[in-house]
Amino acid sequence: MAQSLLVVGSIAFDSIRTPYGEAPEVLGGSAVYFSVAAAFFVPVRLVGVIGEDFPPAYRRVLESRRIDTAGLQVVAGGKTFRWRGSYHGAMNEARTEDVQLNVFGDFRPAIPEAWRDSRLVFLANGSPVTQGAVLDQVRKPDLVVADTMNLWIDTEREALLELLRRVDGLVLNDGEARMLSGEHNLIAAAHKIVGLGPTFVVIKKGEHGSLLVSRGGPPVGVLPPDLICPLPGYPSLKVFDPTGAGDSFAGGMMGYLASAGKYEFRDLVRAMAHGTVTASFTIEDFSVRRLERLTLGEIDERLRLYRGMLEF
Amino acid sequence: MAQSLLVVGSIAFDSIRTPYGEAPEVLGGSAVYFSVAAAFFVPVRLVGVIGEDFPPAYRRVLESRRIDTAGLQVVAGGKTFRWRGSYHGAMNEARTEDVQLNVFGDFRPAIPEAWRDSRLVFLANGSPVTQGAVLDQVRKPDLVVADTMNLWIDTEREALLELLRRVDGLVLNDGEARMLSGEHNLIAAAHKIVGLGPTFVVIKKGEHGSLLVSRGGPPVGVLPPDLICPLPGYPSLKVFDPTGAGDSFAGGMMGYLASAGKYEFRDLVRAMAHGTVTASFTIEDFSVRRLERLTLGEIDERLRLYRGMLEF
Repeated sequence: MAQSLLVVGSIAFDSIRTPYGEAPEVLGGSAVYFSVAAAFFVPVRLVGVIGEDFPPAYRRVLESRRIDTAGLQVVAGGKTFRWRGSYHGAMNEARTEDVQLNVFGDFRPAIPEAWRDSRLVFLANGSPVTQGAVLDQVRKPDLVVADTMNLWIDTEREALLELLRRVDGLVLNDGEARMLSGEHNLIAAAHKIVGLGPTFVVIKKGEHGSLLVSRGGPPVGVLPPDLICPLPGYPSLKVFDPTGAGDSFAGGMMGYLASAGKYEFRDLVRAMAHGTVTASFTIEDFSVRRLERLTLGEIDERLRLYRGMLEF
Repeated sequence: MAQSLLVVGSIAFDSIRTPYGEAPEVLGGSAVYFSVAAAFFVPVRLVGVIGEDFPPAYRRVLESRRIDTAGLQVVAGGKTFRWRGSYHGAMNEARTEDVQLNVFGDFRPAIPEAWRDSRLVFLANGSPVTQGAVLDQVRKPDLVVADTMNLWIDTEREALLELLRRVDGLVLNDGEARMLSGEHNLIAAAHKIVGLGPTFVVIKKGEHGSLLVSRGGPPVGVLPPDLICPLPGYPSLKVFDPTGAGDSFAGGMMGYLASAGKYEFRDLVRAMAHGTVTASFTIEDFSVRRLERLTLGEIDERLRLYRGMLEF
């Protein structure tokens, strides 16, 4: 049975340059990519902060889907968070050129009373203190998953370690997993991370796919006593703009889990596959444009192809 | 029905240093790793060159398996090819510290008359001119697959392009595929490479797995009209020594294909899975030591786990 899904994170104006073109002040932010992706599978409760400059057209992108914006805080006289970046060469990493936190700098998430019973909670990338403040406001969710980034691993390690003891899952990229664990080998890194509190960790490797490691499996050969699943990236001929790939991956993953209402290891693997395929559409255009014109039928068809590729 | 498999390539003494230890003058070389891996699945016909310094113990490693050494050329008074290298940090790339080509520098492969009808031929990494000279000596094999490296792409591009028109498949790593094609995106790179002659290309991505692209599929969404399959790497907790991973991947792949006697796309995918799993053992110890004590039962068990990981 489908379960309620809450996401708290950033809402932004992104200015992006890639080898294929430029897009000034387009709709972005972790909570936006997450929500638009997850809404293919379940209704989404979105908590975030915007300025008075947030245009009605961007609001319509959210509200024309199954995204409840009752948790949007609008700061009078404030300006929305802005990020400017570019991609070069193999486009594996964004080069950040400018960040203006604006209203996001003082973001104190307030979870609407009616949403405090949300069964699934996704804490998009943000300060672990702020992420913890969200958990203080919700009542015994079934599944809490957090994202994080190098900045917090570096500057707020203690708060992050405290947060890790309160979440079921952590999603982060390979460089961040190495940084958090001090391990080069990703299996070793994941094993250390599940030792810090979460039941599972999903390591995102960009074009190389993702790795799921969950505590409590049986010893398997030379591997640690974890349940492990590596999935390849969905093959993409053209990465138009990788911005939001990770957040829409998490959105597809959590959206699927909320729709399934089950969180066993095989459900997590299926959820990762949904995240992989959803993200493979995101990168085909700027912002959430490809997701805006995407249908569930297209997702299902690509899932079928992806599943077929991996049968041998 | 199992088919005959011929491999031509280097036989070497490797001196290796990794964060886990050192191994001086151990048995190595592309044809050795390939043969020991492939011999789990079919008998192997090995053509290579060694010096008089090649010890009986190393010869026994080959001859105690299903590896026919009738094609070994022993150069009187000559010294065997030597390579010295080390791995650091994430161990993704070898740092070459010394190369002494010795007898391999003048290697002119001579295919024994009885082997000229081999049904499958693997041209391990070597000069494309030498690889072509092998093809001049064999009679209409069913499947010819070549490996190559940055050195030949850089210095013998014309000879390599000529060779590519004579092979069915090419195996190379991601950096080499980008170099050969001039494309950053690996799908685009693979698509260009199959345009150069081979029916299929397998791009090896180290810990990130491998990518198979074969000509002649139907148009699929935004992908080119190729058949495409990405496989993740088998998760490894400890990469003890990555030397030979690529060659034993190719050995497992070609050995499986020779044992199956079928070369359709799904056979190639299954072959890649066999290569992935075989290579995952190679990296657990120096040289071919882990393969020496490996059983087909262990390969089958790991294949079963790998297949299970990818079901969703």
